[in-house]
Amino acid sequence: MAVYTEVSDDELADLVASYGLGALLSYKGIAEGVENTNYLLHTEKGPILLTLYEKRVIPEHLPFFLGLMEHLANAGIICPTPVRDSEGRMLRTLAGRPAALVTFLEGVWIRRPQPRHCAEVGKALAALHMAGRSFGLTRANDLGLAGWRPLFAHFEARADEIDPGLANTVRQELDFLEANWPSALEQGIIHADLFPDNVFFLGDRLSGLIDFYFACNDALAYDIAVTLNAWCFESDHSYNVTKGQALLKGYESVRPLPPQERAALPLLARGAALRFLLTRAYDWLHTASTALVNRKDPAEFLRRLKFHRGVRSANDYGLLEGA
Amino acid sequence: MAVYTEVSDDELADLVASYGLGALLSYKGIAEGVENTNYLLHTEKGPILLTLYEKRVIPEHLPFFLGLMEHLANAGIICPTPVRDSEGRMLRTLAGRPAALVTFLEGVWIRRPQPRHCAEVGKALAALHMAGRSFGLTRANDLGLAGWRPLFAHFEARADEIDPGLANTVRQELDFLEANWPSALEQGIIHADLFPDNVFFLGDRLSGLIDFYFACNDALAYDIAVTLNAWCFESDHSYNVTKGQALLKGYESVRPLPPQERAALPLLARGAALRFLLTRAYDWLHTASTALVNRKDPAEFLRRLKFHRGVRSANDYGLLEGA
Repeated sequence: MAVYTEVSDDELADLVASYGLGALLSYKGIAEGVENTNYLLHTEKGPILLTLYEKRVIPEHLPFFLGLMEHLANAGIICPTPVRDSEGRMLRTLAGRPAALVTFLEGVWIRRPQPRHCAEVGKALAALHMAGRSFGLTRANDLGLAGWRPLFAHFEARADEIDPGLANTVRQELDFLEANWPSALEQGIIHADLFPDNVFFLGDRLSGLIDFYFACNDALAYDIAVTLNAWCFESDHSYNVTKGQALLKGYESVRPLPPQERAALPLLARGAALRFLLTRAYDWLHTASTALVNRKDPAEFLRRLKFHRGVRSANDYGLLEGA
Repeated sequence: MAVYTEVSDDELADLVASYGLGALLSYKGIAEGVENTNYLLHTEKGPILLTLYEKRVIPEHLPFFLGLMEHLANAGIICPTPVRDSEGRMLRTLAGRPAALVTFLEGVWIRRPQPRHCAEVGKALAALHMAGRSFGLTRANDLGLAGWRPLFAHFEARADEIDPGLANTVRQELDFLEANWPSALEQGIIHADLFPDNVFFLGDRLSGLIDFYFACNDALAYDIAVTLNAWCFESDHSYNVTKGQALLKGYESVRPLPPQERAALPLLARGAALRFLLTRAYDWLHTASTALVNRKDPAEFLRRLKFHRGVRSANDYGLLEGA
C-alpha cells in the first residue's frame, strides 16, 4: 500500500508515447499491492496500469510473470495483460526500476464474500489451471514445501513471542508434512495467492484475477487448498462449509478432481495454512509495530492449521462424493 | 500522500448510487494530498474523485470550500467541482468522515515549470480572483499575518535546531511585517497555496487548479506573492526574473495591478516566504525523521525570505512599469 518510487512526468510521457497510447492525460500513484509501486494512468486510449517492480521482485522472474499474464489473457482468463511497446517489448525501465504497462481491470474486490462469489472463484481457478497447461515457462515455488523449513529457521527462536508453543507446533507440522507430502499430483501453473483482494467482481460477476507475482509451478490441488484457506473461513475463524462446497463445486464444474487430489486435500490445506502462518509470522517479527504498513495477524492461520488437523476427509470441506 | 481511511465496497456502492452515476466500476486509493484521503472512482458515468476529510480539516469550513469550488466552476474556472447527490447535498458522511465527490480533472503537474507555464498560472490566478468577487461566503486566513506569531511561539525555543540564528531572524521579520503590513489592499478570495503540484497541465495548456483547502479571504496581491514564491525560484534558490515577469504579465493581462499592490509586492513576498518557512519549520520539528511522510525543507523559504529582503521594488520581480 505505498508509492515507493516517484516518476517524472517527462519520463512517463516518453514511455507512454512509445506504446502508441496517445497522450498521457493523468497519472496517480495508487495504494495497491504491498510489493510494487503502481500508477493508474489515464491515456487518450483509456486507463492503464503502470507497475514499477521494487526490490522484493527478482528481475529474472519478470519474463515468467509477464509472459504468464499474456498467455492466460490469450487463453481467455481475464487478468492484467502486459501491453507491448512499438518494438514489441513488455518490460522496460523507468526511474531505475523494471517497469511494465498492463491493462487496467475494472472491478472491486469483495470484503465479505458470499457462497456465490466462492463459486465464481472456484470456476476461475480451475480455468486458470487448465489455461496454464500450455504455458512454456516454469518457475519453482520458493514458498512451497521445500522453502518452509528454511523460512522458519529465520525466526524459530522468536516464534513463541507470537503465541506460546508456536515453535513446537510448527516443528511438528513440518515433520509431518515433509514425511507425508504427496508427490504424484498433477503439477502445473498455480496462482498461489488467490485471496479476495486479488479477485475483482462487477456485481456478482467475476471481472478479473490480479497479482500473479507469486505464481509458480506446483500441485494444482495445492492452489485449491490455498484458495479454500483464503475464502472459506469466517471472521471468527470457523470454516464455512457452504462456501467451501460452492468453491469446490465451481472448480469441479471446470476441472473435476481426480481421486488422489481429493484424498490429499486435507493435507494440502494444512500445508497452505502453514505457508501463510510462516510468512505472516516472519513479517510480524520483522516489521515494527509503529510502521505504517498493516501487519497481518499470523494467528489467523494458526487457527486454520488447527482446524485442518482435525479434518478427516475432503468431504469435511464440502466436497461432494466423486461421481 | 496516504490513504488514512479504508472504505467498504458496499458503503461506497451505496454512496455512488445516490448520485445517479450508475454502477461503481472500481476505486483506488490514491497518493495525492497530504491532508485527506482520496479515492479515484471509475463509474459508469466516468471517473470521479472521492475525498474523505481527515482530522486536520475543520468540518465547519467544508461548506466554504465546497461552495467555493462550485462557485468558481460556475464562473468558468476549471477546478474540482462538487457533485450534488439526488437530494442536492454536496457533503455526505462515509466511514465516519465528512465526504464529497468532486469531478476528476485530467492533467499532470509540472515538475520543472517554464516561463510559459508561469504565464498560464498568472492568468489563472487573476481569473480566480475575479471570479471570487461574487462568492458569498468568507473564511478568515488562519495562516495570515495574525496567525504567524502564535504559530512561531509553538517552536520558537527549538527554531535554531533548523538553522542557527533562525529564531532571531523570524522575530525581527515578524516585528517588521506587523509594523508595515499594508491594510488598504483589495481583499477577496485567495487560493493561498498555488504551488506547482496544485496546477494541472495537458501539454502547455493549463487544465485545472486543485486543492482549495487553504482558500480564504485576504489581500489578492498576497496570493500573487505566494505564487511568485512557489513558481519563480530555481532549485539553487535563485529568483528567475523571466518566470516572474511571465507570471506577472499573465496576471495583469486579466487583472492589472493597482499602484498600491505593486508597491506592496516586495513586502507581501516577504510575508509569503515567512508563512511557508513557519509551517515547514513547525512540521519539520514535529515529524520524526523516520516517518514515511516527506518532510519539506524549511530552509528553502529562509533563502527566499532573504532574497525578498533585498528587493527594492516590484520591478525586481519582473513587473513591467505601470501603463
